[in-house]
Amino acid sequence: MSQGPSIKNVGVIGTGVIGSSWIALFLARGLSVTVTDPAPGAREKLAAYLEKEWPSLIQIGLSQGASLANYKFVDSIDNYLEEFDFVQENAPERLDIKRELFAHLDAHTRKDAIIASSSSGIPSSQFVTECKHNPARILIGHPFNPPHLVPLVEVVPHPGTAELYTKQAVEFYRWLGKSPILVKQETPGFIANRLQAAVMSEAYSLVNRGIVSAEDLDMAMSSGPGLRWALIGPFMNNALGGGGDFKHFLDHIGPAASGWLEDMNEHRFEFTTENMGQLAENVEAWTKTVDMKSVEKERDQYLVDLVKSKAESRHLK
Amino acid sequence: MSQGPSIKNVGVIGTGVIGSSWIALFLARGLSVTVTDPAPGAREKLAAYLEKEWPSLIQIGLSQGASLANYKFVDSIDNYLEEFDFVQENAPERLDIKRELFAHLDAHTRKDAIIASSSSGIPSSQFVTECKHNPARILIGHPFNPPHLVPLVEVVPHPGTAELYTKQAVEFYRWLGKSPILVKQETPGFIANRLQAAVMSEAYSLVNRGIVSAEDLDMAMSSGPGLRWALIGPFMNNALGGGGDFKHFLDHIGPAASGWLEDMNEHRFEFTTENMGQLAENVEAWTKTVDMKSVEKERDQYLVDLVKSKAESRHLK
Repeated sequence: MSQGPSIKNVGVIGTGVIGSSWIALFLARGLSVTVTDPAPGAREKLAAYLEKEWPSLIQIGLSQGASLANYKFVDSIDNYLEEFDFVQENAPERLDIKRELFAHLDAHTRKDAIIASSSSGIPSSQFVTECKHNPARILIGHPFNPPHLVPLVEVVPHPGTAELYTKQAVEFYRWLGKSPILVKQETPGFIANRLQAAVMSEAYSLVNRGIVSAEDLDMAMSSGPGLRWALIGPFMNNALGGGGDFKHFLDHIGPAASGWLEDMNEHRFEFTTENMGQLAENVEAWTKTVDMKSVEKERDQYLVDLVKSKAESRHLK
Repeated sequence: MSQGPSIKNVGVIGTGVIGSSWIALFLARGLSVTVTDPAPGAREKLAAYLEKEWPSLIQIGLSQGASLANYKFVDSIDNYLEEFDFVQENAPERLDIKRELFAHLDAHTRKDAIIASSSSGIPSSQFVTECKHNPARILIGHPFNPPHLVPLVEVVPHPGTAELYTKQAVEFYRWLGKSPILVKQETPGFIANRLQAAVMSEAYSLVNRGIVSAEDLDMAMSSGPGLRWALIGPFMNNALGGGGDFKHFLDHIGPAASGWLEDMNEHRFEFTTENMGQLAENVEAWTKTVDMKSVEKERDQYLVDLVKSKAESRHLK
């Protein structure tokens, strides 16, 4: 990790699942964080969450000065807005709320403070419409849940975002130890959610068609392609599959893959009430036999180990 | 691992990339293997491959009696066919070759010996057409490359395969330490290749549309959803995402996912010569700057560690 950016004071709006996890990460990197959330009991929930998750962050590694004491939960953030170098927004996914909130944040923060939204669904071009001060420093910084453990952050500028701020946001997330990627155009679902939707759609179709059980489909992923995708992405996997030559791989697999995709398209899963009900029945026939709490706990432990181990690798990202 | 099945003598037809890897695995589990391949130099190539890969197998763990000495490479396998309890076939992916080969294997092996094809593309119903002896013990046992490291095996019976043999094949692969899944109907690409094609298709489209670089798309996977898919599959991830309730997840994410999928379908990657050429340019702009040999080496080391570590887990598969 580099010596650190000029970003020292961070504001966090919204302390739900995503907001709390961001706060944990910022604290682990030694930052000072001021946070707010109007929900009843939010202050206590956040404190409990941070206590619970701190051991994972210790495992991954704390930066100098990192402390759970470096945050303050405030009832109104207005008195602090001018202090912030960076704001991470995690308000509800409603356009009217975000539009009003961003107009307010834009008007009352320093002109060069970056305001990043965790929004997974609403592109920022839709909620900067009322920002008169400097909408060029507003963008999406969409994490993958939970942000304090999973490295991916999708940075998505709107057409009016200045490149300078996009670069600063990417650098800041990288300094945090995250793996930021740049999404060059606003696209529904950004990148990771689209890749997930592609898999889910085919998985849903295969199970509802009776070709494979939900349990076996899951194993096909986690004992097959998932093992590699945790280490390198689809393009590098393809290129290595072609002996280092992506074009060779594409020429070799293209015709077959094209045929599979035709067949998949013919059997696309439609999200009707009936299909979704049938799917839930098929999946729950398996999941209800599983000790889900233990699965989740073990997954999260393995996730921490994997992220930590990959952080020490020279060639994997 | 259980005490072991009645399968002791295994025949392997074809010692290319997949066949050689199967042989390594069979030997690591203490089996006696008789192998053949008509290609010039095949005997020497196999010997060199097994020497090179044996350390990985030692790392994962050898069964009692495991030895590199327990295989014989024969010029003609005909004198041995009657001895086999199980045959793993890895001949070229050509229907005429497989049809003739399976008629021959079927005629000369014991009636209750299972004959499994590693074929990734041709369903066995197409090549058992000339089998007069007992086509009911013929099926697909499709591994994920390389089979001695990646646990997934897709077991795909043809409509005439007897359930008894399907069960025996699944049990045998499980005894080998693999993760066999049952594909209940012959389906183009089976399961894992379809899931991969779904991801590749969207990845190809996003990069050719200029929305994200190949490098960033890869990171979106390997720092995002790939990390989880190495541990648990899409259904369990969805269910945990719904707080243990798959239906809740589906109702919550369904409308959004459906919208993303519409957009993805509108921008489907078409495998034209022009698109494939453009894609290769886009990908190679990145891959040519990368030390691919080192990436591959590190990926394979991490793969061994991950598989080994998951084998010790209680709840992950």
